[in-house]
Amino acid sequence: MNIAPIIDKAQAGAKASLSRLFELLRIPSISTDPAYAKHCDAAAAWLVNELSALGFEAKAHATPGRPMVVAHYTPKAATAKTPHALFYGHYDVQPVDPLELWHSDPFEPVLKDGRLYGRGTSDDKGQLMTFVEASRAWIEVAGELPIKTTFLIEGEEESGSPSLVPFLKAHKDELKCDIAYVCDTNMWDDKTPAITTRLRGLVHEEVEVTGPALDLHSGLYGGPARNPIKALSAMIAALHDKNGKVTIPEFYNGVAPLPKATKKQWAALKFSERKLLAGIGLKSLAGEKGFSLLEQTWARPTAEVNGMWGGYTGVGTKTVLPAKANAKFTFRLVGKQNPQKILKAFQTFAKKHMPKDAKISFSGKGGGAPASEVPENNAFIRVTAAALQEEWGREAVLMGSGGSIPIVRHFKDILGMDSVLVGFALNDDAIHSPNEKYNLTSFERGIKSWVRIIGALA
Amino acid sequence: MNIAPIIDKAQAGAKASLSRLFELLRIPSISTDPAYAKHCDAAAAWLVNELSALGFEAKAHATPGRPMVVAHYTPKAATAKTPHALFYGHYDVQPVDPLELWHSDPFEPVLKDGRLYGRGTSDDKGQLMTFVEASRAWIEVAGELPIKTTFLIEGEEESGSPSLVPFLKAHKDELKCDIAYVCDTNMWDDKTPAITTRLRGLVHEEVEVTGPALDLHSGLYGGPARNPIKALSAMIAALHDKNGKVTIPEFYNGVAPLPKATKKQWAALKFSERKLLAGIGLKSLAGEKGFSLLEQTWARPTAEVNGMWGGYTGVGTKTVLPAKANAKFTFRLVGKQNPQKILKAFQTFAKKHMPKDAKISFSGKGGGAPASEVPENNAFIRVTAAALQEEWGREAVLMGSGGSIPIVRHFKDILGMDSVLVGFALNDDAIHSPNEKYNLTSFERGIKSWVRIIGALA
Repeated sequence: MNIAPIIDKAQAGAKASLSRLFELLRIPSISTDPAYAKHCDAAAAWLVNELSALGFEAKAHATPGRPMVVAHYTPKAATAKTPHALFYGHYDVQPVDPLELWHSDPFEPVLKDGRLYGRGTSDDKGQLMTFVEASRAWIEVAGELPIKTTFLIEGEEESGSPSLVPFLKAHKDELKCDIAYVCDTNMWDDKTPAITTRLRGLVHEEVEVTGPALDLHSGLYGGPARNPIKALSAMIAALHDKNGKVTIPEFYNGVAPLPKATKKQWAALKFSERKLLAGIGLKSLAGEKGFSLLEQTWARPTAEVNGMWGGYTGVGTKTVLPAKANAKFTFRLVGKQNPQKILKAFQTFAKKHMPKDAKISFSGKGGGAPASEVPENNAFIRVTAAALQEEWGREAVLMGSGGSIPIVRHFKDILGMDSVLVGFALNDDAIHSPNEKYNLTSFERGIKSWVRIIGALA
Repeated sequence: MNIAPIIDKAQAGAKASLSRLFELLRIPSISTDPAYAKHCDAAAAWLVNELSALGFEAKAHATPGRPMVVAHYTPKAATAKTPHALFYGHYDVQPVDPLELWHSDPFEPVLKDGRLYGRGTSDDKGQLMTFVEASRAWIEVAGELPIKTTFLIEGEEESGSPSLVPFLKAHKDELKCDIAYVCDTNMWDDKTPAITTRLRGLVHEEVEVTGPALDLHSGLYGGPARNPIKALSAMIAALHDKNGKVTIPEFYNGVAPLPKATKKQWAALKFSERKLLAGIGLKSLAGEKGFSLLEQTWARPTAEVNGMWGGYTGVGTKTVLPAKANAKFTFRLVGKQNPQKILKAFQTFAKKHMPKDAKISFSGKGGGAPASEVPENNAFIRVTAAALQEEWGREAVLMGSGGSIPIVRHFKDILGMDSVLVGFALNDDAIHSPNEKYNLTSFERGIKSWVRIIGALA
C-alpha cells in the first residue's frame, strides 16, 4: 500500500496531534506520590477515551497501584497470518522538584524554539503519543490499521513497576504478540534514528563487614583491633586488576566477544569519547583496557560500588575504630551472564578476601535480570531499520545501552516475545530533571516513523 | 622523716576524707553543658575553700569557659633546692545520659561493696582528692608539706580544654615546676600500681576524592567513568602491607626499636592478649606482625580510618556512580615521629595512589602532637615507682597508653616540664558511662601513695 497519503495526513494533523499531547501533559500523573493517584487515574481514563474513539477496544485495568491501560485493535480483514504488534509506553511521570529550577510550569507545556517543555514531554508521554497519533493517521486515511495492534500503557514505570509482572502473568494470553515495540529510548543524535538492540542486565548486592563487637577508641585499640573499613576497602580494591578487568573468578562466563560486524559498525559511528567524558568532567576511560567507550558501556559487564559508609561521618574528628562498614554494589551484565551465578561468585570472592576477625554478610534481595540482546539479523529489526531510514534519510544505528529496561526482560520471560526499542528522545532531553523537553521534530517525525513501521509490518 | 605517722593519720582520717569527696561529687559540674556553668563555679569555689583552709594560697581564675583552680604551698623552710611539684587533675565531669541506666543518682554518691558509685568518682574527682587528702595528712601531722606544691585543677577537661593552652601561656612563670604529676590514669590491675610513661601522639587528616563532575547513572556510565569510592578504597587498601606495616614512605622515621629491658618488662606482665581481644569480640592481632598486643598499642604507630562515606547510603538501592567519596584518618605516633612530616608523607602517598581522573583534596586542620615518652631512668620516675611499691607491695608497672593525653604535651611544650602519670583508676571504672565507680581501695591507698611520693620527693 502506498503510505504517502498517510504520511501527508500525519503532517497535516501535526498541530492537532500536539494539542492532544498537551492535554495529556497537563495531567500531573506522578506515580510515586499517592497524592497524585487520582491524576494517574485521569491520565489512564484520558487514554482509554482517545483510543476508544479511534476504534480500539480499550480498558483501564485496576491494579494494587496505578491503572494499566490495555487497548486492542483487529482489522476487519485480519487473518491468522496478519502480524500482531504490541506497543508499550507509560503515562506516569517523575516528580518535579526542585520546582524553583523550572523556567515554566512543569504541567503547563509550552512550545518554544522547536522544543516542547514540560514534565513527561520526553519521558514518556511525548513518545507514547507518537504511536497513538500514527495509528490515528492510518485509521483516518486507510479506514483501519493494517496490522493487529495492542497497546500496553503502564502507570508505574517511574515507581518500580510493582504491578507489572503480576499483570503480565495474569494477562499472558491477551498480551502475547509477535513482537513488542517499546518507545522509551533515544535516537543516536537529532538527525539519526536508532534501535536499541542491547541492554545490560543488572544484579544488586549489599554487604556489611563487622570487626570488633563495638565501636572502639582508636588510641586504646588502634593497631591490634581489626578495622572493618580497611577490610572492606581492601576487598573493593581487589575487585579489579590494573587493566580494569573484574577479578571475580568465573565473572566473565557467558561474555562473548563482540561480533566483528558490530565492532565495525560502532567504530564507524565516529563517536567522540573525549566529548562525552568532558561532559561529565573526565578525561580518560576507566573501564577495561582495549575496549572503546561504547564497548565498555554497551558490551562489557561491570562491578560497581554505588555507596559505602562506616565509622564517623559527621563534622570534625572522632577517634573511633568502628565496629562495622557497609557497601552497596551493582553488577551490570552482558551476554549470557547469569545474575544468580554472578551473585554467588561475588559472595565467594568477598568472603575469601576478608582477613581474620572480619566477617561479611550479604543482605541484597537477590533477583536481578540478565542482559537483553535482540540479534541484529532479527526480521523485525531489519524491517524497522529500513522504515526509520526512509523517514530520516539516514541508516538507523543499532546501538546498545549500558542501562537496563526491565520490561524487555519481562516480555521475553513471561510472554516469550522479543522487543524492538525505538524512541525519539535525545540525550539533552533532561528527563527526570527540571525543564524536561522533547524536540518538535522528535514528535512529528516520530509519528511519521511509526506510520512507516506499521506499513512495513503489514 | 619517718612517714609512718602520716600514713596512720591518712588511714585514720579516711572516713572524713570520703565525706569531703562526697561533698565535691554532689556538685554536678558538667563542663560541656552551659546549663551547668554555675555548678562548675561551685566546684571550683569548693576546692579553693578546702585548699585555703589547708594553708594554700588558692584562687579560681576566670577563663572564657570554666574557672581554673590554682593553689600554691611553700614550706617555711623552703630553699632554692626544695623540689617543686605540680599536681594536675580536673573537677569537671562528663554528662550523665542515658540517665535511666544508672542504678543510683549520679550526683548522690553511694558506697557499696567497697566501691564508690557516682559521676566523677573515678574521672577525676576521686583521683584528684587523693593528692588533696595526702597533703592534708602531711600538714596535720608534720605541720607543713615538705616540698613546694602547686595544684592546677582544670574545669574543661571533658569539653576539649579550650582555655588550657592560653592559660598555661599566660601563667608560665607561676606554673613552671620541676615536675608535673598527672592523676588521671589507671593502675595495671587492682593490686598493681602503674606509671604511664608512654603516650602515643596523634594527627588527623580528612580527604575528599572526586571523580565525575556529578553523580552519574551507573548503567549509562558504569565502566568508562572513574568511581571515586573505588579510588579511595584502593588507596586505603594500599596503606598497609600484608604484614600490617604502614607502607607510607618515611612513615617509620623516628620510630626506635623498643629497649630490650622494656620489652622484657612488658613480656613479664603475662598480659592475656586473648582475654582483651575476646572482650571486644576479636581473636587475632591485626597490627604489625612480630609485635605483641602491648607493643602494637603502646610502642607502634598506626594509620587508621575513622570514617568513610560516598554515594548512596540510604535504604534500598540506587544505581549511582558517585561524584565523590570521603574519609577521615588518624595517625597515632610514637618515638620522634613528627606530626607535620607524617601528614605530608601521607598526602604525597595518597596523591600518588590516585588513578587518572580521581583528584584528592585534604581538609584536616593540621596541628597534631608527637608522642610523649618519659625516659624510664628519669629520677622522678624511679622515686615515684619506689614509693608506689612501698605502698602496694608490688613493683609498679611502667606502662604505655595507645591514647593521647594532651596536657602532657602542653606541660612539656609550654612549661618545659616532664610529667609523671600516676593514677589509681581501673579498667572497669566505667568512666564516661552510667554507674561510674572508683574502688575504695583506689581512694584510700591512692591517698597513702601520694603521702609516700611527697615524702620521697622531699
